[in-house]
Amino acid sequence: MGQENHSAVTYGVLREQSPEESRVALTPDVATRLKRLHVTCNIESGAGLTAGFSDDDYRQAQVNVLDRNAVITQSQALGFVSRPDADVLKALASGTWILGILGSFTDSQYIQQLESAGLIAVALERLPRQLSSAQSMDEMTSQNSVMGYKAALVAANAYASFLPMMTTAAGTVRPAKVLVLGAGIAGLQAIGTAKRLGAVVTAYDVRPAAREEIESLGAKFLDLNIDLSSGQGEGGYARQLSAQEQAEQQAAVDRSASQFDIVITTAKVPGRKPPVLLTAAGVEALHRGAVIVDCAASDLGGNVEGSTPGKTTTAGGVIILGCPNLASEVSSTASRLLSRNLADTLAHFIDNDTTLHVDLSSELDKALIVAGKNEEGK
Amino acid sequence: MGQENHSAVTYGVLREQSPEESRVALTPDVATRLKRLHVTCNIESGAGLTAGFSDDDYRQAQVNVLDRNAVITQSQALGFVSRPDADVLKALASGTWILGILGSFTDSQYIQQLESAGLIAVALERLPRQLSSAQSMDEMTSQNSVMGYKAALVAANAYASFLPMMTTAAGTVRPAKVLVLGAGIAGLQAIGTAKRLGAVVTAYDVRPAAREEIESLGAKFLDLNIDLSSGQGEGGYARQLSAQEQAEQQAAVDRSASQFDIVITTAKVPGRKPPVLLTAAGVEALHRGAVIVDCAASDLGGNVEGSTPGKTTTAGGVIILGCPNLASEVSSTASRLLSRNLADTLAHFIDNDTTLHVDLSSELDKALIVAGKNEEGK
Repeated sequence: MGQENHSAVTYGVLREQSPEESRVALTPDVATRLKRLHVTCNIESGAGLTAGFSDDDYRQAQVNVLDRNAVITQSQALGFVSRPDADVLKALASGTWILGILGSFTDSQYIQQLESAGLIAVALERLPRQLSSAQSMDEMTSQNSVMGYKAALVAANAYASFLPMMTTAAGTVRPAKVLVLGAGIAGLQAIGTAKRLGAVVTAYDVRPAAREEIESLGAKFLDLNIDLSSGQGEGGYARQLSAQEQAEQQAAVDRSASQFDIVITTAKVPGRKPPVLLTAAGVEALHRGAVIVDCAASDLGGNVEGSTPGKTTTAGGVIILGCPNLASEVSSTASRLLSRNLADTLAHFIDNDTTLHVDLSSELDKALIVAGKNEEGK
Repeated sequence: MGQENHSAVTYGVLREQSPEESRVALTPDVATRLKRLHVTCNIESGAGLTAGFSDDDYRQAQVNVLDRNAVITQSQALGFVSRPDADVLKALASGTWILGILGSFTDSQYIQQLESAGLIAVALERLPRQLSSAQSMDEMTSQNSVMGYKAALVAANAYASFLPMMTTAAGTVRPAKVLVLGAGIAGLQAIGTAKRLGAVVTAYDVRPAAREEIESLGAKFLDLNIDLSSGQGEGGYARQLSAQEQAEQQAAVDRSASQFDIVITTAKVPGRKPPVLLTAAGVEALHRGAVIVDCAASDLGGNVEGSTPGKTTTAGGVIILGCPNLASEVSSTASRLLSRNLADTLAHFIDNDTTLHVDLSSELDKALIVAGKNEEGK
């Protein structure tokens, strides 16, 4: 709407449809920020409630609170937590921009749909993370950070003993021993949070750079005494290990795990079945009451054999929490950060405060735009 | 049994009957400790499972794992988390000792039953807490300490934002502001745990000594600018306030509460209806998504108007968690500590490694024994 007379860009956000999703793609503070860039914001009524923001909070930030259909038809660009489903796609006018994590690495059919619908699609999973100008757009980092924080809290809350050491008149309680498997953004945040709570933390990652990062947080690096040479892959993520390497790693982790009270696994590899880091044998070796939090749990499996989304208690009394959606559980902070990531991405494409514009000579634009490369920005 | 030939004291523990109770009154490590005092320990099969201890764990500590009836009939003394119910009392032989928190301040009829049954009853709620020799027997302190730790964890886990400040590429997340009302053992532990997690903590207590304790933990004392003169009562607990004082305090707390993200209330007064610290008006002033954890919640009410055991979400989106049994949720640590409290109390009454004996000239014995004062120890 309104592009004929070069009015400001309009940006809309809908209520997320999944009952497991509590985040919202626009928070009032970020709307205020966008206002300064002359962006008019629309939000579907009720969209922020599960993240702690009422319609009035949005109105106070000069956001138009509209019904779902009005947001869809009156916004040049829409931001999403989860990518838009078929119903939303059908309703979007050709030339509309969509921003979000779109699954472009694994679902080319979906991207083809976006192209056919004439949409201009900005896929945040394609962000060149090494560009410093891209850091404030990095939704994967912000949400993994929230996930790691929450993983440690969930583990502490499920564990029937103290995390910190306590010296009391009735004896000394030893601190909990926590093992974090996968020391990317989420793992490092889990390490930091478990350490805050007073646990003794050990961590492991296949990337050689991880040892230094782990030790810089005051945690111990778990030395498995196996040679995985370089485990670092593209974009700073862990690369996929060979079957042989994976088996060796599993056996070594299984051998070490029994000494821990809490195990947190964070090895999500975007768009792929997560690697098994702890096998059933490793789980069985843990003591009664030990807690595992598997952030990679999904219907395809997780980092831990036998984990599924939700709570499983083994015959030996080990508690496995499969937690596919931890960032969503810290809905307010997670929403603030991802709103900012989306807003900064949107801002990158705004030309002269008035139009959205793709510049295919820019490395960022070339990476992010997965549909509508040939459209003129509206 | 066995007292004729001066064999060792036998001490038994049953499986707790309440489905909300996960603690056990004897843990394997404490059984090992009692063994060194020549106490033979009996435990009901399965009693430790919810606290993380299997029958095999007890057998390894040389505890006899028996059925319920055998524990009752073959133990000279029994220790309890919750006091024994009518069924157990009926089954106990005259002259049997029972140790636990018996409710002697509020339920004289129950104590009369114990007397009529010829039991020797050791009421831990009567412990003269100022005696240094009594500190390792202090179950109220150990369990309140666990409760305070868990209250902060539960609050952090229910709160949809970070507790710590985080500076990220997508902006800075401010730390959560936590208010702890009631700064006894539980409150101080809640303060410490919330601070570990990076929150900015303020606390309040009617006892004048509390200010220094609160500030020594690096928290801020909430100054209500009202004169409650001395709020300290007997035994180091808060005294009951007059209706006028209580109304002034409520109004002042209500005025202050709106600036906080999390409120934790810990003002249980043993055996009485808990004082209301935060009224419905105070709750309503909190922002959407604010979390209240009311440790004093009970069927009689709690420290917070509108709180009941379980979760309540107000129309304004404030989450009230009524948590009457938090120590039980940290069942393993709580059980270790209270087992030790009970065991040290038992040990105090053991004479020459062979018999249980009451010495009414001892201040401790005089305070603790609430039934069977005239019985000879068996």
